[in-house]
Amino acid sequence: MLKEMMENVRKKTPLIHNITNYVTVNDCANILLACGGSPIMADDSNEAEEITTICGGLNINIGTLNKNTIPSMILAGKKANELSHPVILDPVGAGASTLRTSTANDLLKEINFSVIKGNISEIKTLAVGSGTTKGVDADIADKVTDENIDDAVKFVKEFSAKTGAVIIVTGETDIIADSKKAYIVKNGHAMMSNITGTGCMLSAMTAAYITANNDNMLEACLASVCLMGYAGEIAYKKMIETGAGNSTFRNYLIDTIFNLTSEELERGAKYESK
Amino acid sequence: MLKEMMENVRKKTPLIHNITNYVTVNDCANILLACGGSPIMADDSNEAEEITTICGGLNINIGTLNKNTIPSMILAGKKANELSHPVILDPVGAGASTLRTSTANDLLKEINFSVIKGNISEIKTLAVGSGTTKGVDADIADKVTDENIDDAVKFVKEFSAKTGAVIIVTGETDIIADSKKAYIVKNGHAMMSNITGTGCMLSAMTAAYITANNDNMLEACLASVCLMGYAGEIAYKKMIETGAGNSTFRNYLIDTIFNLTSEELERGAKYESK
Amino acid sequence: MLKEMMENVRKKTPLIHNITNYVTVNDCANILLACGGSPIMADDSNEAEEITTICGGLNINIGTLNKNTIPSMILAGKKANELSHPVILDPVGAGASTLRTSTANDLLKEINFSVIKGNISEIKTLAVGSGTTKGVDADIADKVTDENIDDAVKFVKEFSAKTGAVIIVTGETDIIADSKKAYIVKNGHAMMSNITGTGCMLSAMTAAYITANNDNMLEACLASVCLMGYAGEIAYKKMIETGAGNSTFRNYLIDTIFNLTSEELERGAKYESK
Repeated sequence: MLKEMMENVRKKTPLIHNITNYVTVNDCANILLACGGSPIMADDSNEAEEITTICGGLNINIGTLNKNTIPSMILAGKKANELSHPVILDPVGAGASTLRTSTANDLLKEINFSVIKGNISEIKTLAVGSGTTKGVDADIADKVTDENIDDAVKFVKEFSAKTGAVIIVTGETDIIADSKKAYIVKNGHAMMSNITGTGCMLSAMTAAYITANNDNMLEACLASVCLMGYAGEIAYKKMIETGAGNSTFRNYLIDTIFNLTSEELERGAKYESK
Repeated sequence: MLKEMMENVRKKTPLIHNITNYVTVNDCANILLACGGSPIMADDSNEAEEITTICGGLNINIGTLNKNTIPSMILAGKKANELSHPVILDPVGAGASTLRTSTANDLLKEINFSVIKGNISEIKTLAVGSGTTKGVDADIADKVTDENIDDAVKFVKEFSAKTGAVIIVTGETDIIADSKKAYIVKNGHAMMSNITGTGCMLSAMTAAYITANNDNMLEACLASVCLMGYAGEIAYKKMIETGAGNSTFRNYLIDTIFNLTSEELERGAKYESK
Repeated sequence: MLKEMMENVRKKTPLIHNITNYVTVNDCANILLACGGSPIMADDSNEAEEITTICGGLNINIGTLNKNTIPSMILAGKKANELSHPVILDPVGAGASTLRTSTANDLLKEINFSVIKGNISEIKTLAVGSGTTKGVDADIADKVTDENIDDAVKFVKEFSAKTGAVIIVTGETDIIADSKKAYIVKNGHAMMSNITGTGCMLSAMTAAYITANNDNMLEACLASVCLMGYAGEIAYKKMIETGAGNSTFRNYLIDTIFNLTSEELERGAKYESK
């Protein structure tokens, strides 16, 4: 199944409109190209709708949020909804400031998201108006573990039912769920949190996956999450073999996305349904 | 001839003022350093003129265009004209949105550009007010091929006559022309479109080339285009040898610009006059 | 001594709020992660104070300065002062434009900085209202040499007395001083000026060092400067061994920060007190 998802992205070259932060934007563009998509970045309100119109999907990321681009997010999101383009939200740092939390909530009100992707702390902030966010990392108290996984899955399914979006919760164990069905993914490596942008890159790549597989968004998300995590494992091995560090790890990660075959993804993916 | 162009850049260390997009800005700075130039990025209207004044050349790139920086582009461009500094325009995505097309047209009205560099779709948008732009890539219908090359060269020469600028049209075959003379370049590799920023990097590097060789802008552009393309070929070979992917390819590309000798450039350049 | 400084950063994982330029922001985030810190970038005035509040230290960098973020710098700086968080200023390009010089001076008036880090030209601009800045590099006439080192150290100590900040002057020889004590550092390699961002990265990393070692800021700065310079030497060696260029050098530099042990830092550091 993951195989077909991946091949669809490579075959269809989905063009993705990204309104995203300036910290990891270059990595997002390069991972979109690596996975077989095509990126366009545009955040001025005077062109947001037009750019979305020529694209296949939209990726909204609120890292380095600023007041000038919030209207662009709303305009692009509404236009994407009108055109039935898939839209993903990455609520980076929701819970860390009032601006981010209230903007994320406003976006949820104004736009129907196909996918919402965050760590457990960010997702909790959106879901229950609580949750503590230490910077952009999930609060340790809110960690998803083998012990609380069933509760977490239930919570995520409920949030999906409430929003109509597929929810991706990233962490040591990732959860991907709609209101009825959930997957947990055990791919990935702790090294991935030693570079900036793995979360942002996952959102950008997922935008390509749901755009090229818009008849099956849940499994498209699953494929993207497995791919990112498995690429992290491979990149980590290569980093150790070559005595490299986190900067080169970033290159290995994107390189792996570029080179991995769909058969390798099928073999390397570690997921189960819940 | 290319040899002297390259050596002049390395000898003179031209300081280039860049008003450019936030996606590829880091790559632009690093390629400027790699080729022997020196970058300064500044886009606030309160300092645009002053910064241009202390520089030797100006690079204006309209990717991630936003309304705050448009006045800065105009101010810097006019000041550069006043000081007879070379100015290059990269109309990224012209044709993709009204904002980009109209801004590019406004810039052409207000500023005398030394060089305009784009793909065939962007250049057509500026030249004839038509042209279709799919994201930031040239429309496939507008591709320059061996069959239509003479027509394309004629069109480019005419646009040069109209604007007074050297025109660079990038693609599988690149065209560099002023109103009287044209070159076509066959360097480069398809891999270059698998990373973000090769176009932006070419513009930034070309700014350094025309600044250090301002008595011969056409051939300075030719040298820069050959260098970028040839570096792409070398970087691709190294990528294949090392089993790397697109992220590492970007590093190899910039590394090659850093290390290539002027003799190697002369030998590797594949161009002819038209 | 440097050993303990380094270990404190790795043990405490200081969360650093960065208001910085969009050219080198990704490198700043990755070097913060490499050294053991944790980055958050936020520059909107609506969240600047809140973000600073959840962080341990603040890094203000005026590269690609724009009028929207200046109020955010002031708000965040005042809040950090109120909370006794360490704050570092990197006055990138002070002296190159009125906007940068006057903003740097305004920041000095409004905020008590723990550390101010620049090249000799930038520091002179702030200190005596003179100094010439060629782009973002120190003016050659103002170079610190073995001949004028005593005068330079005296000048730096005086500027520290005036501002209450530890002053870092970067160059072939680095000077780190408070009003009473100074160190000079001979680590580093000329190659470091062939990539963008070594200065910005040093400021970001130093923010982590002073935050994790806020009882001894002078030596924390010394450790950070030695680490950066020594990492540059190691990265240069690796670059030569592998036939790489400046882009890969950047990766090696950050990788080295990630991998270097505190014992290696102690052995490699080349400093003396003055």
